[in-house]
Amino acid sequence: MASEHTYKEYDNELESVRAKVLEMGGIVEEQLVNAIEALVKSDPQMAQGVMDSDQRVNELEIEVDEDCSRIIARRQPAAGDLRMIMMILKTITDLERIGDEATKIARTALRINEDNRMTKLRFSEVKTMVEVVRQMLRTSLDSFARMDVSKTVEIAKKDELVDEQYRSTIRQLVTFMLEDPRTISMSLEVMFVAKAIERIGDHAKNISEYIVYTVKGKDIRHASIKEIQKTIKE
Amino acid sequence: MASEHTYKEYDNELESVRAKVLEMGGIVEEQLVNAIEALVKSDPQMAQGVMDSDQRVNELEIEVDEDCSRIIARRQPAAGDLRMIMMILKTITDLERIGDEATKIARTALRINEDNRMTKLRFSEVKTMVEVVRQMLRTSLDSFARMDVSKTVEIAKKDELVDEQYRSTIRQLVTFMLEDPRTISMSLEVMFVAKAIERIGDHAKNISEYIVYTVKGKDIRHASIKEIQKTIKE
Repeated sequence: MASEHTYKEYDNELESVRAKVLEMGGIVEEQLVNAIEALVKSDPQMAQGVMDSDQRVNELEIEVDEDCSRIIARRQPAAGDLRMIMMILKTITDLERIGDEATKIARTALRINEDNRMTKLRFSEVKTMVEVVRQMLRTSLDSFARMDVSKTVEIAKKDELVDEQYRSTIRQLVTFMLEDPRTISMSLEVMFVAKAIERIGDHAKNISEYIVYTVKGKDIRHASIKEIQKTIKE
Repeated sequence: MASEHTYKEYDNELESVRAKVLEMGGIVEEQLVNAIEALVKSDPQMAQGVMDSDQRVNELEIEVDEDCSRIIARRQPAAGDLRMIMMILKTITDLERIGDEATKIARTALRINEDNRMTKLRFSEVKTMVEVVRQMLRTSLDSFARMDVSKTVEIAKKDELVDEQYRSTIRQLVTFMLEDPRTISMSLEVMFVAKAIERIGDHAKNISEYIVYTVKGKDIRHASIKEIQKTIKE
């Protein structure tokens, strides 16, 4: 029979997994910020740091996967805990992919640094996007830590804003390229960075949606903002 | 105590989940093929069909998620079955994202169709890439159906080929744009389609890696082809 001791162990195991997810979240948030910093300041060392962090993110993903399997096999979690574990499994996939996108941006920073013609490129177009995406990620991680669904709509609206910023960035860059074909290579680099940032926003939004699934037992992926609002209020 | 009847029910449940995963796989493979067809032949109806299929893919993802939760909660699966369920949960995320990428390509096909200047655009650059990616996806799904790891290295090598084809496509398109700036908008459309196809390749490769995890109990994500070869042989 399960003793109080066993329950305490089980609680500690769940807490340790949640802590690892938040550690992963902290690293990828730093990767995002530093990747952009490396790009804007042409700082190859900082870019290298972002790429180095990716290994730790990958390790954590595998660790958390194994922890979750072990908890399911040994503890036979009840419905609520099981939903949380399922949600953690999904969350770490998104966090790992945020790390990948940040690593891609860091690689761009290294490449651009090698190419002198490009060092003067301003990445002002993407800076506002990054700020919004960073807020989205931070809010999702905070909501995860507190299992709080109150920010879901705010995050979904920010994702729409980022999508609009992304489209506007692309339009702007196309105009630059048409006006002066010498800007083509540079503009493409900015374009792919913008794409990576936009995807990081998608992943942050996914995480906030899993929290709703955990807390409300309702899957709101592919739902409209109106439907999300309804679910949160229920 | 579990009766033979219960075991049979349990087997049927697992079989039904696997069948749904394969159904999802079949739909997204068709989405990929039709999205490219819609693009090459400027066929808006076919493009619309790809977009319509996405809803079924999303529904299946949610269904499989729920089925897996229910099986874990009610059947307390043993280690091997649990690994398979964990792997199914990851596989459907990748399949859903393949559907998303195919839908993006279909949306491009619709947009290009509306724009007469662009209808003459040839997508020959991406056709070989699509063929390789489609083989990757097909092989991954076949391997999933038979829980077979023998094609993992073949798929990883094809993924490297696709990455090289992608980079070469981008270089070619940049050359076109520089030579004739009037091709900029068109070239960008091709570029984003190429990017979507390259990502579909990544997802197909992910699926093949989950199979190794299920069969060999070893996580080969982030491993080199040499390391993968070693794991498969063990």
